[in-house]
Amino acid sequence: MSKKPLDGIVVLDMTRVLAGPYCTMVLSDLGARVIKVERPLVGDDSRHFGPFKNDKSGYFLSINREKESITVDLKKDEGKEIIRRFVKKADVLVENFRPGTMEKLGLGYEDLKKINPRLIYAASSGFGHSGPWSEKPAYDMIVQAMGGVMSVTGWPDGKPTRVGASIGDITAGMFTAIGVNAALYQRGITGEGQKIDVAMLDGQVAILENALVRYAIDGVSPTPLGTRHPTITPFQAFKTKDSWIIVAAGNDKLWVNFCKALKLKDLAKDKEFSTNKQRCDKYEELIKILEPVFMDFTTDEIEKILNDHSIPCTPINKIEDVMKNPQLEARNMFVQSKDKVMGDTIVSGNPIKMTNLPESTSKKGAPELGEHTDKILKELLDYTEEEIEKLKKIKAV
Amino acid sequence: MSKKPLDGIVVLDMTRVLAGPYCTMVLSDLGARVIKVERPLVGDDSRHFGPFKNDKSGYFLSINREKESITVDLKKDEGKEIIRRFVKKADVLVENFRPGTMEKLGLGYEDLKKINPRLIYAASSGFGHSGPWSEKPAYDMIVQAMGGVMSVTGWPDGKPTRVGASIGDITAGMFTAIGVNAALYQRGITGEGQKIDVAMLDGQVAILENALVRYAIDGVSPTPLGTRHPTITPFQAFKTKDSWIIVAAGNDKLWVNFCKALKLKDLAKDKEFSTNKQRCDKYEELIKILEPVFMDFTTDEIEKILNDHSIPCTPINKIEDVMKNPQLEARNMFVQSKDKVMGDTIVSGNPIKMTNLPESTSKKGAPELGEHTDKILKELLDYTEEEIEKLKKIKAV
Repeated sequence: MSKKPLDGIVVLDMTRVLAGPYCTMVLSDLGARVIKVERPLVGDDSRHFGPFKNDKSGYFLSINREKESITVDLKKDEGKEIIRRFVKKADVLVENFRPGTMEKLGLGYEDLKKINPRLIYAASSGFGHSGPWSEKPAYDMIVQAMGGVMSVTGWPDGKPTRVGASIGDITAGMFTAIGVNAALYQRGITGEGQKIDVAMLDGQVAILENALVRYAIDGVSPTPLGTRHPTITPFQAFKTKDSWIIVAAGNDKLWVNFCKALKLKDLAKDKEFSTNKQRCDKYEELIKILEPVFMDFTTDEIEKILNDHSIPCTPINKIEDVMKNPQLEARNMFVQSKDKVMGDTIVSGNPIKMTNLPESTSKKGAPELGEHTDKILKELLDYTEEEIEKLKKIKAV
Repeated sequence: MSKKPLDGIVVLDMTRVLAGPYCTMVLSDLGARVIKVERPLVGDDSRHFGPFKNDKSGYFLSINREKESITVDLKKDEGKEIIRRFVKKADVLVENFRPGTMEKLGLGYEDLKKINPRLIYAASSGFGHSGPWSEKPAYDMIVQAMGGVMSVTGWPDGKPTRVGASIGDITAGMFTAIGVNAALYQRGITGEGQKIDVAMLDGQVAILENALVRYAIDGVSPTPLGTRHPTITPFQAFKTKDSWIIVAAGNDKLWVNFCKALKLKDLAKDKEFSTNKQRCDKYEELIKILEPVFMDFTTDEIEKILNDHSIPCTPINKIEDVMKNPQLEARNMFVQSKDKVMGDTIVSGNPIKMTNLPESTSKKGAPELGEHTDKILKELLDYTEEEIEKLKKIKAV
């Protein structure tokens, strides 16, 4: 049987909450062994975030499934020694402490690469490991607002609107995962590791592309447009009898089909609306014609009509609808996490389908705090039983 | 001098518009040589998307800077032969055609791996290369609405709201880039390539984590919350005298400092609001107290006050503000793209900082359509001058 892409890779996971754990979850899904280092007694902050099932955090489960957990007190010398021994065995270290924290512990990249020059050290932080704001704290919402995404999300003259998913954290986790994999590739050639430094704020700018170049060329900051596409019409949400539907008539051919579907024969022939440019220029006029048409149908009815005419469209799915989507089911995007405490709970599957990554409809659960401390200390880090007892007595683990 | 992580990697880039080109831009930023194959005369659709500068598309520039371009007519046998020769020299092929298109051209993965078993073949599509909806067309907004992100973005009882950045496309491009790098790592061990298959819709589910597990555990679909955090208070936008400010008082200590900063001494001591849980439970009551306080200040004034007390906060930056941010400048997130036609234009920098990736404040421009056809055919694919003339005559390039 072929091995998974990252089979054999050991990840020393010193991350908490979201950006870092998201990165190590991606690495785990690609086949890496991810061992999470947590604070004794308390653990990852997100163990205390709701929703809970049998007193265990669903939030924690959703991004830490299939990982192992050991507890280490990083403030004790014996704890630092555990990390140093671990670094000798690890391929990758991922951390999302505030910049400077690892250095203060004597565990910065410059220290650790002396112990293991093959180590790939990946840091994800709010503002990055350089620059004047490096050590400032950040949250997802802060970088969403600071980085510009929030300024183009929402309705014209409406209230500010946060992107409902934590894209500040998640894109940082993804960029970090890209860097780790590229560094693994390069290490295969050079034999040497390197440091990766990803900032949440940088990531928000990197996903702006269109907005950034618009300002760079036109000198005008883009504004929020609700659901409307800036340069395609009709391409937006329309209100129906009972809710809304998204229509994406992306070109002139689809426009003609769209008119046919809705029995708007005159409109299809109307020379004032035949090109996308015309439809954009006369947006207000056209939308006033279209809006009442949609109000004659329920979302289900109009979805069927538009689908029959191959017009890209969709209702705005609630999470309960998303979880019934047959395509997502076929793609195995909802898997049962088999957690010892929580029982079976649905979590997201892996979106990166690869030849050497066999699909599975279930995943292991998330580890209990320190569940694997003894095993890892003994088997991976070669501590003796006596040494482990001593570490426990002084509360270093 | 150390080489970049993907130095020497040749990417045969058969992508258009956004998801695919975003992936190959990331690969290019990591050091790969990306050669874009475009349709003769027309090119990538996005060459025709605004904004324009000297008649060249800024949209195209922003995600195709530093790439090379060759034209190939894929419908001609001679064009297909160019691709097959190219596959022999390429490490990675990335495409975002509708599933089935490459197979119909005789250029599917099963065909190409016979030519080059080391080839990494990465496909990014709307719904993926399997499942009942595989061949349906998709747009960013369709997958945003279908995948659930739109259902948690916006205001309670408000109109549907699209995420202002094309996160459907961009996250698909990023997941594809992760897969390509992981496959490159594995190829270093096995000597064999593999296929990567990423769907935009799958990616939208993979970034939902919190929303998905909430529904899985509570059985209630999460709803949009404006800018509010579901389980932390105060953590949202507040209206000021002249605009808005985002405040993220993420824990009880920050809450006390927040009250001090705003001279709300009684509130700081109020036992009804001392824990985050209390503040969330009495959200409406608390916000009614806080809202008028913010209306006494301009955003600049309150930002300074909160910053002085180390409370995470930010104005909601327009793109023009983002481009003046000193931290982003220090991180080199705005680079000058030196385009022959467009002149210097600011585009996004690379958010993945790595030891072996030297920073630069400029990038090459985007290629003219077919700018590198002769050079690539001759130098990389070993066509003779006569053969190239013949290809031109029959309009295969």
